[in-house]
Amino acid sequence: MSPSYADVLAAADRIAPHIHRTPVVTCAALDELCGARLFLKCENLQKVGAFKARGATNAVLSLSDDEAARGVATHSSGNHAQALALAARRRGVPAWIVMPTTAPAVKRAAVAGYGAVIVPCEPTLAAREQTLREVVARTGAVFVPPYDDERIIAGQGTAALELAADAPGLDRVLCPVGGGGLLAGTAVALSGCAPAVKVVGCEPDGADDTARSLAAGHRLPAVAPRSVCDGLLTSVGERNFPLIARLVAGVWTVPDEAVIAAMRLLFERAKLVVEPSGAIGLAAAVAHRRELAGGRVGIILSGGNVDLDRLPWLPPREDPCPTR
Amino acid sequence: MSPSYADVLAAADRIAPHIHRTPVVTCAALDELCGARLFLKCENLQKVGAFKARGATNAVLSLSDDEAARGVATHSSGNHAQALALAARRRGVPAWIVMPTTAPAVKRAAVAGYGAVIVPCEPTLAAREQTLREVVARTGAVFVPPYDDERIIAGQGTAALELAADAPGLDRVLCPVGGGGLLAGTAVALSGCAPAVKVVGCEPDGADDTARSLAAGHRLPAVAPRSVCDGLLTSVGERNFPLIARLVAGVWTVPDEAVIAAMRLLFERAKLVVEPSGAIGLAAAVAHRRELAGGRVGIILSGGNVDLDRLPWLPPREDPCPTR
Repeated sequence: MSPSYADVLAAADRIAPHIHRTPVVTCAALDELCGARLFLKCENLQKVGAFKARGATNAVLSLSDDEAARGVATHSSGNHAQALALAARRRGVPAWIVMPTTAPAVKRAAVAGYGAVIVPCEPTLAAREQTLREVVARTGAVFVPPYDDERIIAGQGTAALELAADAPGLDRVLCPVGGGGLLAGTAVALSGCAPAVKVVGCEPDGADDTARSLAAGHRLPAVAPRSVCDGLLTSVGERNFPLIARLVAGVWTVPDEAVIAAMRLLFERAKLVVEPSGAIGLAAAVAHRRELAGGRVGIILSGGNVDLDRLPWLPPREDPCPTR
Repeated sequence: MSPSYADVLAAADRIAPHIHRTPVVTCAALDELCGARLFLKCENLQKVGAFKARGATNAVLSLSDDEAARGVATHSSGNHAQALALAARRRGVPAWIVMPTTAPAVKRAAVAGYGAVIVPCEPTLAAREQTLREVVARTGAVFVPPYDDERIIAGQGTAALELAADAPGLDRVLCPVGGGGLLAGTAVALSGCAPAVKVVGCEPDGADDTARSLAAGHRLPAVAPRSVCDGLLTSVGERNFPLIARLVAGVWTVPDEAVIAAMRLLFERAKLVVEPSGAIGLAAAVAHRRELAGGRVGIILSGGNVDLDRLPWLPPREDPCPTR
């Protein structure tokens, strides 16, 4: 079942008490750079530092009491893990998060800090899926997928509802696409509340499966994706792709160097900490400034979870003085 | 003449079309750390990246047409320079900014980018004042001081009006103090719109002239001030001090290490780029968490102009591998 605009509205009501209504900020320096009026939807300021709090909260609150009592489970080393852990704690139910043993300690600590049980696994997709199956079989927990799920898609779409309300008359909205939860949700939301807006997906050129899938007319998997945008490496989801194909005006691909430059611009000029995946919309806007000229452009800054010891414009810290 | 609450209200009306109404954000992780509910007033998201846009805009818009036509001048290597340059450009009048030859190229470029004339001088206070006098004598420009001025104080106070409106029922507001423009303005504003709020100044312990002045009962100069908070090194102003002495509940001093830790927390948990001077309020809140416990605390994040190549928690970049 595809989520509808009504599902997005219902999600917005459901999650409102539990998430931040994030601000939409403007920045004259960035407007000048792009020759357009930009409206930055600050999902980096969302709970757990990313829009993922919306979908996970909607999914957990959509469960019946019986389902919820069994707890929830997922596999993720990223923002969805924290988002699901937080949403489960809010509902007072257990959460099991399958995480690869290679996940950074800081991410494990964040998930554990929300009271979730971390189940370690080998760092392969097969091991993650197998471990998750075992957890679900053993505990009876409900699997909450990171993006390929109608409750998740509807939840992620609520950010665009707020953006459209706070920045009326937009011409375009630029939105990152990895698995497609945020992009599909954004497209569904805007198709209902602001149907004149063109929704554009923004994808790393090293992980361009959505762009290729749209060109082919059917879903193609990501092949050895590589990008500084660690949140955008997954292949577009089965439920996500048809919504994107039907409702999105196109996908713009962006090289990593442009993403890093945009991330630095957001720190420097907009004073916002944004992760690479979250900066890709601005990178796309800079690259496509001719098409955007004079327009009103919404950009979803999807998250802000960054390792501050390893900012991509700084030289690597490891062993700065190797013995000669 | 001391600025009154009515002056702050008039300033708010005057500058509203020209500045950002900055968001007030909350962050559960920081609340937990301080055991209080924190309301972060994001003046780092203000135009020119600092609250200084408020006072400078109010001062420039308060000039008569005849005065304004002569242009404006100041000496500053910091945020006031950019703020005055921008305010002058908005009114369509010239601005002369006296800057020490040691000012970073990026700051000179920002001021020049707003169309102001940069007048270089030796990096001493005497040279700055002398050069400014010459500029004023030569051009007839109106001197707009950075903080010791009633129009500036009234303008800076407008941030607290917005904070009180967006976060009702505050117990305390924590506010950085250098020259005292923001602190005096905040105190005047809250004395009118939220008189139950205790206003606390936050000062680096290496530049604690305001704390010492309050203890002495009269203004004492800063002596060889040293702090990572480069915006808070100046001595408290002549017009600022009596307002602070009358209206402020106290001043809390903070060591630099605590400021740097708070700055990193703001990047990491609140996803906000804040300069050291702007992070001092959070540093004070962490240090005084027992006094704040259970309360509602406003914190003014005064600015976000940071050199992203030299974040204070990272090792210095210069010559990382000296020859042995």
